[in-house]
Amino acid sequence: MIIVMRPNATHEEINHICDKVRELGLTPQLSRGVHRTIIAVIGEDEKLMVKPLEAFPGVDSVVPIQKAFKLASRDFRAEPTEFDMGGGVTVGGKKIHVMAGPCSVEGREMLLKTAEAVKQSGATFLRGGAYKPRTSPYAFQGLGEEGLKYLREAADTFQLKVVTEVMDPRNVELVARYSDMLQIGARNMQNFDLLKECGSSPRPVLLKRGLSATVQELLLSAEYMLSKGNFSVIVGERGIRTFETATRNTVDINAIPVIKAESHLPVLVDPSHGTGKRDYVLPIARASIAAGADALMIEVHPNPEEAKSDGPQSLRLPQFEALMKDLKVIAAAVGREI
Amino acid sequence: MIIVMRPNATHEEINHICDKVRELGLTPQLSRGVHRTIIAVIGEDEKLMVKPLEAFPGVDSVVPIQKAFKLASRDFRAEPTEFDMGGGVTVGGKKIHVMAGPCSVEGREMLLKTAEAVKQSGATFLRGGAYKPRTSPYAFQGLGEEGLKYLREAADTFQLKVVTEVMDPRNVELVARYSDMLQIGARNMQNFDLLKECGSSPRPVLLKRGLSATVQELLLSAEYMLSKGNFSVIVGERGIRTFETATRNTVDINAIPVIKAESHLPVLVDPSHGTGKRDYVLPIARASIAAGADALMIEVHPNPEEAKSDGPQSLRLPQFEALMKDLKVIAAAVGREI
Amino acid sequence: MIIVMRPNATHEEINHICDKVRELGLTPQLSRGVHRTIIAVIGEDEKLMVKPLEAFPGVDSVVPIQKAFKLASRDFRAEPTEFDMGGGVTVGGKKIHVMAGPCSVEGREMLLKTAEAVKQSGATFLRGGAYKPRTSPYAFQGLGEEGLKYLREAADTFQLKVVTEVMDPRNVELVARYSDMLQIGARNMQNFDLLKECGSSPRPVLLKRGLSATVQELLLSAEYMLSKGNFSVIVGERGIRTFETATRNTVDINAIPVIKAESHLPVLVDPSHGTGKRDYVLPIARASIAAGADALMIEVHPNPEEAKSDGPQSLRLPQFEALMKDLKVIAAAVGREI
Amino acid sequence: MIIVMRPNATHEEINHICDKVRELGLTPQLSRGVHRTIIAVIGEDEKLMVKPLEAFPGVDSVVPIQKAFKLASRDFRAEPTEFDMGGGVTVGGKKIHVMAGPCSVEGREMLLKTAEAVKQSGATFLRGGAYKPRTSPYAFQGLGEEGLKYLREAADTFQLKVVTEVMDPRNVELVARYSDMLQIGARNMQNFDLLKECGSSPRPVLLKRGLSATVQELLLSAEYMLSKGNFSVIVGERGIRTFETATRNTVDINAIPVIKAESHLPVLVDPSHGTGKRDYVLPIARASIAAGADALMIEVHPNPEEAKSDGPQSLRLPQFEALMKDLKVIAAAVGREI
Repeated sequence: MIIVMRPNATHEEINHICDKVRELGLTPQLSRGVHRTIIAVIGEDEKLMVKPLEAFPGVDSVVPIQKAFKLASRDFRAEPTEFDMGGGVTVGGKKIHVMAGPCSVEGREMLLKTAEAVKQSGATFLRGGAYKPRTSPYAFQGLGEEGLKYLREAADTFQLKVVTEVMDPRNVELVARYSDMLQIGARNMQNFDLLKECGSSPRPVLLKRGLSATVQELLLSAEYMLSKGNFSVIVGERGIRTFETATRNTVDINAIPVIKAESHLPVLVDPSHGTGKRDYVLPIARASIAAGADALMIEVHPNPEEAKSDGPQSLRLPQFEALMKDLKVIAAAVGREI
Repeated sequence: MIIVMRPNATHEEINHICDKVRELGLTPQLSRGVHRTIIAVIGEDEKLMVKPLEAFPGVDSVVPIQKAFKLASRDFRAEPTEFDMGGGVTVGGKKIHVMAGPCSVEGREMLLKTAEAVKQSGATFLRGGAYKPRTSPYAFQGLGEEGLKYLREAADTFQLKVVTEVMDPRNVELVARYSDMLQIGARNMQNFDLLKECGSSPRPVLLKRGLSATVQELLLSAEYMLSKGNFSVIVGERGIRTFETATRNTVDINAIPVIKAESHLPVLVDPSHGTGKRDYVLPIARASIAAGADALMIEVHPNPEEAKSDGPQSLRLPQFEALMKDLKVIAAAVGREI
Repeated sequence: MIIVMRPNATHEEINHICDKVRELGLTPQLSRGVHRTIIAVIGEDEKLMVKPLEAFPGVDSVVPIQKAFKLASRDFRAEPTEFDMGGGVTVGGKKIHVMAGPCSVEGREMLLKTAEAVKQSGATFLRGGAYKPRTSPYAFQGLGEEGLKYLREAADTFQLKVVTEVMDPRNVELVARYSDMLQIGARNMQNFDLLKECGSSPRPVLLKRGLSATVQELLLSAEYMLSKGNFSVIVGERGIRTFETATRNTVDINAIPVIKAESHLPVLVDPSHGTGKRDYVLPIARASIAAGADALMIEVHPNPEEAKSDGPQSLRLPQFEALMKDLKVIAAAVGREI
Repeated sequence: MIIVMRPNATHEEINHICDKVRELGLTPQLSRGVHRTIIAVIGEDEKLMVKPLEAFPGVDSVVPIQKAFKLASRDFRAEPTEFDMGGGVTVGGKKIHVMAGPCSVEGREMLLKTAEAVKQSGATFLRGGAYKPRTSPYAFQGLGEEGLKYLREAADTFQLKVVTEVMDPRNVELVARYSDMLQIGARNMQNFDLLKECGSSPRPVLLKRGLSATVQELLLSAEYMLSKGNFSVIVGERGIRTFETATRNTVDINAIPVIKAESHLPVLVDPSHGTGKRDYVLPIARASIAAGADALMIEVHPNPEEAKSDGPQSLRLPQFEALMKDLKVIAAAVGREI
């Protein structure tokens, strides 16, 4: 941590800061310049972070040096995280997993039909929302536990894993009972009570990036779960809010190599929610793989016109089949497989 | 709702849309132009919103015409909402309420001292966090129920109302027991289960705008509570995320007249969290009143250097006293009082 | 400047950096910690800024300490800048100047009519565009020199100053001949050749903030002119781009106290372009004065329905008269006058 | 164009609008609903766009239906634009062009060395700035015409095309004399006088997207040149401003398929300026090709430590060679070549 003093900071103000630093068992190092003094504090400076140093008289600014997250960082674990989910499914390895299915679980039949088709095309996970976060209270809110049952049945029938969203800390146990991976949606990336509850679950977690969150904030939210003991976390890029209106959100492909550089956690991309338009799903899925993604989440619907949410971005079943064929070629070009 | 067809949309595609519209008991009106056809649907078009019209063949885009929120809109209630909280406190009327106190409740003594001072300077509410949303799992998370007790005691001692944040739907009842107004923080503006729970509470609610939420999204979140029957809602502007780094966030003063034009709900501004710097609290508080705010939330700490969170933006007790004197002058200039 | 080395930086890499620093006549100061080494360079570190230190092996990041702008900073000049424009008009003093007129100069008659009315209501400057920056090549591009002549005539007739935009470095001399203050629009804030040309003009300059520029970038652009010798610069906030769609842009009221703290230059606010809606001009104008603005730019049109650009935000003449009366009250409340 | 009237709009207000529409030779079509009336205007509604319809009494909002750009749109030209630059170089075809070289032209030797290396690795264009847009007036501003001469010489020696930035409309002819393609930088995307001047040049133009511009605004700026007769335009994505700080900007990969869908113009991506970090250039270059880019601009420097600008993102010569080998594989996977 670097404490930059104001040009006119007094001797007393500087000493006052140094005393505080020493009180915490740390060593301040002064660099006195012509214009101003800088105090470097090297060590376990998280201790100091709880003290509002910027509020001290004479302080201009405080610049943190160490990463705010630890367990999620490459410094903590140099090798990429892989986690085994049973049934031959390992997340974070050579194989790129595709999680496919409808935005919302709308019924048993449509889900069985979708599950069969996506399995055949090469997906390993079935996705589908039983609890839906909706901007408007008047929009369809999901089937709840009934939807979870349909997911489990369809996945079991076709040897798929289930990934589905949990929004309420009171439902974590229930959702964990029916699913293989808990999804924390973008709007809940900083729902800290939910993060803690998922961190205590035995289920792996897919944590999606908030709409205007930085990568550092995403990894700090992942840290909430890692610090509770759950290291089976995959972080998901699903588009950030920008000024562009031609796409629903802007899928931040840059985040893939950034997360890979900063963290050992695997990365998923959701081009369906990110772009909001069917025609852009394929190019962004391709780009995600080219940039190093470990998994993709793709919305597929047997009849998008009848979808209760997000129809415009859902692929029809034959479109998904074509997409998977295309993606296998790109995956091979970067030494991966689908 | 306006459905804009593609230039090359076929006759069949246009008829297909019109049939869907009629199926819902609505009337489509066609405007055929040289280049393209437009279908206007006038009526209770929320019914249609559940159908993903953009997924239909031949559709270019769908433009909603009616406001997405209803109960929160000026169309629903033309007069500004005022709600009486007892003890002579009415929110939304001529009097501008100032809610003051520390960011976090750190202990009994500091809170009593703060409460006494802010009451004397003219505040009507005591603020203070017992549950703190923190980006890092390693930061101070609040005193919990113990903090709530201190708040109640300090407020009762000095005839103040208590406003405090609730983060977890499981705690709504507990927080409501000790407080007069529930606060939903910016990070939870779209925590829909929390919104529903607060909508079912008998307590008034302060709903803060998310860091990158639009006013429409804020009012849709308020709608969640109104639709559950709780109309005692005040919405709060506390700074949005922009590219500016000189302030922690950018307090969107424009949102005040916008909310006043679109909705009947009263508006609060929090210049302390919004700017993140003590020196900017006064000018932004002044500007808020000049633009029509009904309430202000101001962080005050007897000793900001020792604050466990947000020290840099907290006013010292004499600074708060000076601010209140200054604000009374501005309030008078716009026909209000503090 | 603080050079933060990577945790695994070698002895050689550290020495290599220190050598480079010494080559430039500066003194590096090392702080060696358990995890990493930090090198502080205190002095005229702008010299170093031309060297791409982040490209050196072993470097993690470089944190500048000194402000990037100098002549525009409070450190350079502690007192607020005031400049005298003749005819009793001093910008930056107690009097808040209102610059009013149409978005575009559309003709002689409408301009004379507007000038007379705004003068009567208390404006000191006539605004109006003769050269218009338009997003579309098919939109009205302004009357050019003819418009400049109308501005000069109307201003002279009613003892007003002229402020008008210049977009092309080739036109600076021409525009300066007819006007009293050159305006550099938001889209040209980083048109560096234009900045240099205006910096060499004897005319005062109004420099508007770019749509997504930070205050620091705005002040760096002002620095371009100050470094050419033109210190008669007023910087203008006219709204930044955010995700909010209810207003055309978001007027950043926070920028007013920030600029006042960082710089000695006076500040103007343009609530007309900023909000894009007539109804929001008054509350934002009020807020601007309450937060410390030195000048306002307000669009006024005798007949907004016929305006060639920006009709929705233009005040009618009687609306402007009412606004001026209202603003005088706010100005008095903060110890200023209009 | 759709004109949405307010719920309480009067008969007179509606008729008034219809009269205005008819005055312009267009036909208004009314849709009267229970709550409000909508007026559809179908035809050459650009005529109407010069009228500020939102300023009319009774109007709630105006929704444009047609694209604001024409010549740049797919509707105008269905086939992708290819332009031949001589010497076997066609932009927009099967071959993906790589434009490589230093950020700034720093001298003759370094440029010759770079040109030789990038030619050998497969680049077809030499890039390098002779005029540099710099945020600070104290930063290196480029060698000017001397730099242009070095570019021409190095390119001719190794059979490369020259692409270089022009910032000032007064220099368009000079820059065109020495180069094969004019570059308009991100900060000048809305420097309309420069756009017009480049539109009148016989040279092809690379137009880069502004830091917070939408794709529509980018294409409108391209339209400025097309409407002057210059159709040899390639548009460039070089990163947009977002809240992410781990990369300098956020390369918007989504823009590639969006531009391809909306326009016939070819697309370039600049991962060097976009990410600002050498390590992220390769993954983003890969992703760009996977998403459909027609060209890449890559910064290469024989000795990044000595670079006068942008050292941290410049590839060393052997790194560039390795990158080119890698990109050939991805290009082949999507049916292109490098």
